Amino acid sequence: MSDLDRVIADLVVANRILAREGVVDAFGHISVRHPERPDRYIMSRSRAPELVTAHDLMVFELDGTPVDPKGRQPYAERPIHSGIYAARPDVQSVVHNHSYDVIPFSVTRAQLRPMIHVAAPMGATIPVWDIRDKFGDGDMLVVTEAQGRDLAQTVGQGSVALMRGHGCVIASQSIKLAVMTAVYTQVNARLQIEAMRLGEPKFLTQGEIDAMTKRQQTPVASDRAWEYWRARARASDL
Amino acid sequence: MSDLDRVIADLVVANRILAREGVVDAFGHISVRHPERPDRYIMSRSRAPELVTAHDLMVFELDGTPVDPKGRQPYAERPIHSGIYAARPDVQSVVHNHSYDVIPFSVTRAQLRPMIHVAAPMGATIPVWDIRDKFGDGDMLVVTEAQGRDLAQTVGQGSVALMRGHGCVIASQSIKLAVMTAVYTQVNARLQIEAMRLGEPKFLTQGEIDAMTKRQQTPVASDRAWEYWRARARASDL
Amino acid sequence: MSDLDRVIADLVVANRILAREGVVDAFGHISVRHPERPDRYIMSRSRAPELVTAHDLMVFELDGTPVDPKGRQPYAERPIHSGIYAARPDVQSVVHNHSYDVIPFSVTRAQLRPMIHVAAPMGATIPVWDIRDKFGDGDMLVVTEAQGRDLAQTVGQGSVALMRGHGCVIASQSIKLAVMTAVYTQVNARLQIEAMRLGEPKFLTQGEIDAMTKRQQTPVASDRAWEYWRARARASDL
Amino acid sequence: MSDLDRVIADLVVANRILAREGVVDAFGHISVRHPERPDRYIMSRSRAPELVTAHDLMVFELDGTPVDPKGRQPYAERPIHSGIYAARPDVQSVVHNHSYDVIPFSVTRAQLRPMIHVAAPMGATIPVWDIRDKFGDGDMLVVTEAQGRDLAQTVGQGSVALMRGHGCVIASQSIKLAVMTAVYTQVNARLQIEAMRLGEPKFLTQGEIDAMTKRQQTPVASDRAWEYWRARARASDL
Repeated sequence: MSDLDRVIADLVVANRILAREGVVDAFGHISVRHPERPDRYIMSRSRAPELVTAHDLMVFELDGTPVDPKGRQPYAERPIHSGIYAARPDVQSVVHNHSYDVIPFSVTRAQLRPMIHVAAPMGATIPVWDIRDKFGDGDMLVVTEAQGRDLAQTVGQGSVALMRGHGCVIASQSIKLAVMTAVYTQVNARLQIEAMRLGEPKFLTQGEIDAMTKRQQTPVASDRAWEYWRARARASDL
Repeated sequence: MSDLDRVIADLVVANRILAREGVVDAFGHISVRHPERPDRYIMSRSRAPELVTAHDLMVFELDGTPVDPKGRQPYAERPIHSGIYAARPDVQSVVHNHSYDVIPFSVTRAQLRPMIHVAAPMGATIPVWDIRDKFGDGDMLVVTEAQGRDLAQTVGQGSVALMRGHGCVIASQSIKLAVMTAVYTQVNARLQIEAMRLGEPKFLTQGEIDAMTKRQQTPVASDRAWEYWRARARASDL
Repeated sequence: MSDLDRVIADLVVANRILAREGVVDAFGHISVRHPERPDRYIMSRSRAPELVTAHDLMVFELDGTPVDPKGRQPYAERPIHSGIYAARPDVQSVVHNHSYDVIPFSVTRAQLRPMIHVAAPMGATIPVWDIRDKFGDGDMLVVTEAQGRDLAQTVGQGSVALMRGHGCVIASQSIKLAVMTAVYTQVNARLQIEAMRLGEPKFLTQGEIDAMTKRQQTPVASDRAWEYWRARARASDL
Repeated sequence: MSDLDRVIADLVVANRILAREGVVDAFGHISVRHPERPDRYIMSRSRAPELVTAHDLMVFELDGTPVDPKGRQPYAERPIHSGIYAARPDVQSVVHNHSYDVIPFSVTRAQLRPMIHVAAPMGATIPVWDIRDKFGDGDMLVVTEAQGRDLAQTVGQGSVALMRGHGCVIASQSIKLAVMTAVYTQVNARLQIEAMRLGEPKFLTQGEIDAMTKRQQTPVASDRAWEYWRARARASDL
């Protein structure tokens, strides 16, 4: 199996996992940088992640132009992906979602922060990006390159940024890490809301975040989680 | 496939989707205006939406009289639908449900408002209708034409009205928009309750509501969501 | 099908429904008064409701003595049922459960009250029974006739009583009404907790409770809900 | 079936139950003391509990050394288990999990306490262990014998200890009791958070805890729950 074949197989599985874990619904998407052409990325045509197959995958230039569309309709919000791949050569995978539990932190002053060790890869500080600040009243979708660049600037060197009243974006060094970060950011958000009702929660220290982020990327952690989520999504045979 | 056949197929799928997404339980119903006879509408006989098939669909006059009942028992609350179709020629589909997450906003002074962009079609202001105000103590069901007209007046030119201690009603320009509005009104309600615990939420502006409502009705958004919900409801082959 | 056969079939389905709707887990039970012998009742042997079949059903005297045990182990807490059938000739079905959403109201001063119209059959006032008040520290199970009589006295002429740190008991005029009351008491509890966070909820008036309780017992409401819950529990073919 | 065969079968089922009940996700593990060699314990290789089969089970010395690894990768956190088996000859089964509902109590001053009778086996007092107290900033995993011993000391003669920002550990006299304690500790945590919003909850007394802990270990309670959870996990035929 070539690198490209493996990446395509993983991307299909990743779509199913994000759907099964409730991180995406009808909307949301995950992309991966092309393993042989770092100036391109791969992402499904406009389709709910739960239904994505290998035939839905399209290749895009870093400005979002489809390479060989074959009449397929791409996601309108691909500037989210284009913007991050252009700004961050280290990033290999990007997720955009409307993860329900995360959204309350995007519309209030409460700060989402890692509180459980498995959520360490989200990073110490999660900025909130409000499209209205620079682009005024609109439909809130990220559909121009300028919007994508602006969002990427908010992400900076981090892993996660919230989008006000909309969802979040995740930038990671691999597909598996992007999925893990998406899932546990959601879990952390839910538990942080609960914990804040009981009192002021203890968050992870920077040292814990750094050490646990490394740990979560070791095969023993990363592959165990991937095998489990893939089985739950009944995507073992894709 | 004729317009009528398509509408019937969509209405059956819509019933299954509303059930699968938890917007209706044993109770609740969705109707569609007859595509060839705007003075009539189509709705299931009295049956839980999850179980509705094409054979359950009945045609009603705008006063709720069944056209060809064949001994089937209609829903008692069809004046909800009759009232809105009579008052609103633009409305093509009506949903009544007991969406659990929405109900807390019907019994308190807290105002349900769109906070997430996908919920924009619910509109800026969601009135609450209390049947007791005009009709006194009773079983709270909307079973007379006067009650239906009164509820329709509260809906006004809007899309959603809450019914105190009971649920809500949704009036939309298509079946797909009615389903989308029902689903995301519920999601918004749940997230608004969570967000209000964290602080005062930022709601969508009127400009955002208008722009995003348009966006949600484009085929790229509307069909993607429909394909997904239909698959989740295992209604692809109905 | 004889009355007895019908009651047995319904009781098996009722067990499955209560399990599917999350009203019972490994524990909890539902009984029905014997249709030909009002001095007896029918209930499963000691088994999780989700697994109950017709072969598990046993007949009991009103003092809890099994009529023909055939070596089967009965539930330890049958005095809950015995106590109510003895005190209330009008009651035809009794449910005992650990319905999770209801329990917070059993350990605090907050009063569970009907807030949604479908929950009207629970009645205006839901007393809380604490076994420790009369019987002191113990395992909190209702295993003696004296305990069962005391609990029945708390139920009085009502439909629902909470049991502190334990669950609740439901006394109804039919199996279908008992199931409906159990399900919607749970839903009401969950929504009341949510609503209380938004402000002081409007509860149903006594007139609404009376009228809606009648409505919920009409076949059009009762059978629709039963058909739905039975299908959800995949118990259609039992 | 030998004692060892029975224990192995039960351990596989226990893995599936913990996964089905949401007590573990990709991470978490359950072990059992070897029935013929009290100086050894049995636990899966590094794998999500939902996927564990008999072939995944490995035997370990009390210091965590695998007896016959056959190239299999063990869990990194087996010092959790080693530490408790070494310190507590009475303990026959240990669970480590990231039970979501429990975690808020591990990061705040709010004390998790038994409030529902079925959760009595968790014990009156649940200590919280913070690995940072003695071992400083790190990835928060329990991977050295010193860490395992320190955690075991916090557990003391109790059944449950929380691990800050991480999860909890459960030490029980049998596999079935360990599973029951894990499941109902989670349920109690969820309901206690809800109840605390309604007011100050009444907790179980020490007398109730003692009596109900005994009751939960009788076959009539323990086997009923096990049969139910095993069926829910579709593990009846493993």
